[in-house]
Amino acid sequence: MTDLQERPPATLDRASSLLAAMTLEEKLAQIVGFWEKSDGEAVAPLQGEFTQETGLDEAVRHGLGHLTRVYGTRPVEPDERAAWLWAMQRRLVTETRLGIPALVHEECLTGLSAWRAATFPTPLAWGASFDEELVEQVAAAIGGSMRELGVHQGLAPVLDVIRDSRWGRVDECIAEDPYLVGTLGTAYVRGLQAEGVHATLKHFVGYSGSRAGRNFGPVSAGPRELADVLLPPFEMAVLDGGVRSVMPAYVEIDGLPVAMDPDLLTGLLRERWGFDGVVVSDYFGVAFLHLLHGVAGDLGEAAGAALAAGLDVELPTGDAFLAPLAAAVRAGTVDEALVDRAVLRALRQKEELGLLGATFEGEPPTGVDLDSPLHRRLAAQLAAESVVLLSNDGTLPLPVDRRIAVIGPNADRYQALFGCYSFVNHVLAHHPDAETGIEVPTVLEALRTEGFAADFAQGSAVDDDDRSGFDEAVALASASDVAVLVVGDHAALFGRGTVGEGCDRDDLELPGVQRALVEAVVATGTPVVLVLVTGRPYAIDWALSSCAAVVQSFFPGEEGGPALAGVLSGRVNPSGRLPVSMPRSAGAQPYTYLHPALGGDGDVTNLRTTPTLPFGHGLSYTSFEHDELVVTAGRTDTPLVASVRVANTGALAGDEVVQLYVRDVVASVTRPVAQLVGYHRVHLAPGEAVTVRFEVPPARLAFSGRDLRRVVEPGAFEVWTGTSETRATQSTAQLVGPVHEITVADARRTETGVDPS
Amino acid sequence: MTDLQERPPATLDRASSLLAAMTLEEKLAQIVGFWEKSDGEAVAPLQGEFTQETGLDEAVRHGLGHLTRVYGTRPVEPDERAAWLWAMQRRLVTETRLGIPALVHEECLTGLSAWRAATFPTPLAWGASFDEELVEQVAAAIGGSMRELGVHQGLAPVLDVIRDSRWGRVDECIAEDPYLVGTLGTAYVRGLQAEGVHATLKHFVGYSGSRAGRNFGPVSAGPRELADVLLPPFEMAVLDGGVRSVMPAYVEIDGLPVAMDPDLLTGLLRERWGFDGVVVSDYFGVAFLHLLHGVAGDLGEAAGAALAAGLDVELPTGDAFLAPLAAAVRAGTVDEALVDRAVLRALRQKEELGLLGATFEGEPPTGVDLDSPLHRRLAAQLAAESVVLLSNDGTLPLPVDRRIAVIGPNADRYQALFGCYSFVNHVLAHHPDAETGIEVPTVLEALRTEGFAADFAQGSAVDDDDRSGFDEAVALASASDVAVLVVGDHAALFGRGTVGEGCDRDDLELPGVQRALVEAVVATGTPVVLVLVTGRPYAIDWALSSCAAVVQSFFPGEEGGPALAGVLSGRVNPSGRLPVSMPRSAGAQPYTYLHPALGGDGDVTNLRTTPTLPFGHGLSYTSFEHDELVVTAGRTDTPLVASVRVANTGALAGDEVVQLYVRDVVASVTRPVAQLVGYHRVHLAPGEAVTVRFEVPPARLAFSGRDLRRVVEPGAFEVWTGTSETRATQSTAQLVGPVHEITVADARRTETGVDPS
Repeated sequence: MTDLQERPPATLDRASSLLAAMTLEEKLAQIVGFWEKSDGEAVAPLQGEFTQETGLDEAVRHGLGHLTRVYGTRPVEPDERAAWLWAMQRRLVTETRLGIPALVHEECLTGLSAWRAATFPTPLAWGASFDEELVEQVAAAIGGSMRELGVHQGLAPVLDVIRDSRWGRVDECIAEDPYLVGTLGTAYVRGLQAEGVHATLKHFVGYSGSRAGRNFGPVSAGPRELADVLLPPFEMAVLDGGVRSVMPAYVEIDGLPVAMDPDLLTGLLRERWGFDGVVVSDYFGVAFLHLLHGVAGDLGEAAGAALAAGLDVELPTGDAFLAPLAAAVRAGTVDEALVDRAVLRALRQKEELGLLGATFEGEPPTGVDLDSPLHRRLAAQLAAESVVLLSNDGTLPLPVDRRIAVIGPNADRYQALFGCYSFVNHVLAHHPDAETGIEVPTVLEALRTEGFAADFAQGSAVDDDDRSGFDEAVALASASDVAVLVVGDHAALFGRGTVGEGCDRDDLELPGVQRALVEAVVATGTPVVLVLVTGRPYAIDWALSSCAAVVQSFFPGEEGGPALAGVLSGRVNPSGRLPVSMPRSAGAQPYTYLHPALGGDGDVTNLRTTPTLPFGHGLSYTSFEHDELVVTAGRTDTPLVASVRVANTGALAGDEVVQLYVRDVVASVTRPVAQLVGYHRVHLAPGEAVTVRFEVPPARLAFSGRDLRRVVEPGAFEVWTGTSETRATQSTAQLVGPVHEITVADARRTETGVDPS
Repeated sequence: MTDLQERPPATLDRASSLLAAMTLEEKLAQIVGFWEKSDGEAVAPLQGEFTQETGLDEAVRHGLGHLTRVYGTRPVEPDERAAWLWAMQRRLVTETRLGIPALVHEECLTGLSAWRAATFPTPLAWGASFDEELVEQVAAAIGGSMRELGVHQGLAPVLDVIRDSRWGRVDECIAEDPYLVGTLGTAYVRGLQAEGVHATLKHFVGYSGSRAGRNFGPVSAGPRELADVLLPPFEMAVLDGGVRSVMPAYVEIDGLPVAMDPDLLTGLLRERWGFDGVVVSDYFGVAFLHLLHGVAGDLGEAAGAALAAGLDVELPTGDAFLAPLAAAVRAGTVDEALVDRAVLRALRQKEELGLLGATFEGEPPTGVDLDSPLHRRLAAQLAAESVVLLSNDGTLPLPVDRRIAVIGPNADRYQALFGCYSFVNHVLAHHPDAETGIEVPTVLEALRTEGFAADFAQGSAVDDDDRSGFDEAVALASASDVAVLVVGDHAALFGRGTVGEGCDRDDLELPGVQRALVEAVVATGTPVVLVLVTGRPYAIDWALSSCAAVVQSFFPGEEGGPALAGVLSGRVNPSGRLPVSMPRSAGAQPYTYLHPALGGDGDVTNLRTTPTLPFGHGLSYTSFEHDELVVTAGRTDTPLVASVRVANTGALAGDEVVQLYVRDVVASVTRPVAQLVGYHRVHLAPGEAVTVRFEVPPARLAFSGRDLRRVVEPGAFEVWTGTSETRATQSTAQLVGPVHEITVADARRTETGVDPS
């Protein structure tokens, strides 16, 4: 639990007495937002359906719950926006009857969504880093900027467990493993909230399982898959991270939209997990219950159903919510007590945030450095730790005296470095002539800074059919020692990109003619180092066999160029590990390494079911050996303790990500053939060895048994370290004792530690 | 209910007293099969794991439950097998203590699996026919052959609702719509059982939802999808068809393998639906609980779990079941009462079949005509009714004086006409030099019989990279008036084919170089009629725009050649309708037309979510008009009555398949944007018009509500006739009354009828 959750009893009285004094209009105003006109940019699905009719004066007449996206929708000086914001808050304090300021929320997935703000690596890169502490530091830096600018709540992190790499929002997700998502997501929550800014868990729950990876598609999942795979990250972030807000997913699961599901929003989240924060809708998500899902006859009915389920606040505006809900309450079809419950939660959140009683009499902030040296250093470290070396025939690292041809659409384009929810990609699509507001060296620029003599040919765009640049690229490669091809994605919203919200794929070949470009360069005979800068894993088995080395970077942010240049030169020893399997094809999706035995290779299908490269894979310029795995055979109700000796047996210092996996050999229901239950990143000098210890709590070995109770069953567990397919060490633990039921919600992490060896 | 279910009380006594007299060995012998050595052919997954150790003498010492596949695994004269069978039965009667003959089971999906037996169209073609009566007649013909040869139980029909066209077993399925699957599957059950042969429903339930269409992959489905989509066909075949046997699917659903799920095998099937027949395992399915699913510690535990859930008989042999189960019973870990329950069911089935007391003293049958003129006529009619005309620019029908180039790997290859579970494809793969035993005109031969001067060039194989035949094909096409390209699939088992059990796909382009072959011929400028002879729908949007006409035939069986030739010449007016959507790509799978609004096109994804051609589509050489749709606004507890006037407005006689769809506009859970609730095939002379009536019972409009009770909710229903995307007529019905719960299992069909207009 964080400090944020410890509220003095007086808080209750303050919020309750405010509620008691409110008219219905004043109540409803507290559970909606106002969004300043944003020049018609599409930043939410079906946004056009909700033409904002309500002007500012009308919107704030009875007070206001949320100010929506004050900083993030236009390239404008933060100082100017802060001044607007302070004036607005002052107006709410002085000109509304109850004088309650608005809660300000903003996007912050890869950094605060504001001009001139640091832009960090995309969540898939956090996953590749396997570094909780660093993610927490990054989130704290983001939170600090938000706090300084008067933003109270951030709409991150995304805790959807990746199930299908065709989905456009994979780049916003952390990993395909729930434990990795849960631990890194919780670290982000801790970091943000330590600065007094409320985090918001997205998208509770199931969104990543949309049919065929199509955005908003229906989700086919049973209660066991929900409980054992999709929900654990949220449980960890609520219980272990003390998160203060949760956003229901747009989707339906097995026919029931989450935004109106009381079992999830109240029974599980509040009653079982003890969450006492605020549930905010995804943008227009309540209206969609009527308009898209067809589960409510009108907007008032939709609002009533959402409130009854446990949703509190409709974002981003009240345009499709306010009047219909007021009418429904007046008509008696929606109980005003449901409104009161939501308003009370919203007011308590404001109290927690210090907003009740805040006067905004002081001067608005000016000159806040949103991209300070600390931001840059953290961005650089996370970018470096997230680069995954997929293959290497010894060509890497490249001596800087090597003459390199730098080729490809992502080599000299700063947008290539940013994820979909980065300010740059989110906004500059609508303001293409604006500047980024931050310094962003491209990969090409960084390679030159690194000391390489680098010539450049773009070769192709990311996603069109134009091959007219191939000849120049081929000629350049032929005249060079090595060709560095930087290809991949362009992240954007709703169809403008190759990945990002609404940018789903039905094939997983590199977009456009990029594969052909790589193959044309490979045909020259010049060794090719392929650098993938993407927001999802692509089907690149062909490249593993034809390129001298392949480097995968998930949108690495503002310091991504130098990180990649450092890996290529050897200044940075690559240490990222795949947070998601590299697929064989779109036709092999959905896929998860957490499959039972019958989901794997075998006589039963002619197709290869294994991915091109497995979850957890990643090479280094040095070599590591694991041995002396010792597993203490435990009981079903005590931690499983494992230790392994890890040695750097190569000539360079480097980081190893020690991954601990288990397989429950026989259980009452099918269990995955491999499951990550712990990991630890350790830095080792050449020749150095340490012992890494893991203490795996029973909850991490538990699953939903036949009757859906969460249990640890006695019996044999295979235990190993390494990657999911390459077992560097292996042992078997016999757990004894009765079937142990996890009767209270339990999101404990695996404790890890390091001893000298 | 069929007569088979009406058993006099005496039957109980007979089976019970036999059971009381049995040793444990005699009991166990009744719930396993014996399979004569089959030359090591792989006819079941992991068959190699179960090397049959038990010889005949040992297998029959204590009696025997089933004789497995007496006719279907080798090309040998049925007379010879019948003689062997009668001798075996006589031996069981005379040489075992209790004198109980074996139950003989055989595959019969597209006809009795026996040499010289008629081979009918594959189930996808039944679906395309939308003709219940004809499917029932076909099944009766199959059942008659089985009865004559002493076969008591057939392992068909397959009632898996298609969810993903990548899956290899799609050709064994009837359709992607549960009502169409349920009605045609029930028709098959009625036909087979009317001849005294027990049908077996496969695969109960969920198999078609395997992840990524991979055979045996885990199934992600919640209880609502199960109840509303996957289970209804089984309910119809149990309640409306009175089926006598059910086979659990190999797969797990949400972590629990069906073969050990008591809620499905006992709670739903027996207690709710009242099924009192026998549940038989899919081959080695019980052993797989231990060997593949990891949900049982050994084979005895697996057997105990399956028996406890409600499974009765392990097929095809007892090798992995008998000894471990005996040991478990003797050790007290499996209750002998579970064995007794299964044995009693098995004995009652034998009593029903007249086997208890049968002496087999008569002569075995000889000279049975398994491919009589009746068989041929039914095979021809079903083949003709199942051909779907996808597109036609007027090139079809082709006058027989047209000089045609016949090209393609499926044009002159009889195997191309048969589905995976046809005897020919199932067996001749292992005996490639054998003859089919039946007369099978290829498409080329049939076109010549039809009167065409047809030259032939193969062009390519179905599934390799060899383009050496392209030149000949192109030259031939260039010299012809029209090119008829016959391409598609080869059905086989476990990796030998392009479709069939274990032959899954991760792309849905035509296999091999067939698309390139078609495009090379199209490039000549000679009009191309593309004939697809396949076991699944492929992504052929490119062909719709480049070919003069496209004809889809799902493996049409022994009379498929003449049926296709008849459609091309105009002798047959095509009347098949797509039983499954034509996909855009493998990357667009899984797909079902039964999606909620958020699974369809819209602003929320850049991908087109609609298929190339929708479920229900099919053209004719004449034209039909629908009008005067009259829907009687009903109550939630009474049938919805609709009628529509259908007129043949063209110059040729033809069949129209009138399809009735509904959409429940607002419901308590999401409902599909279209759902087939009735259909009627009607033959109309030129200028003729009739009124087609539908009486849709409440159960067909019901769904699993919020609490999973099955309800009809009041409110607006859109009602239309036509195909799912092309609404020929449209109306809205307002259902009034309270929420109506379907409290007893109710599988009633929509009654249809025709009045002169």
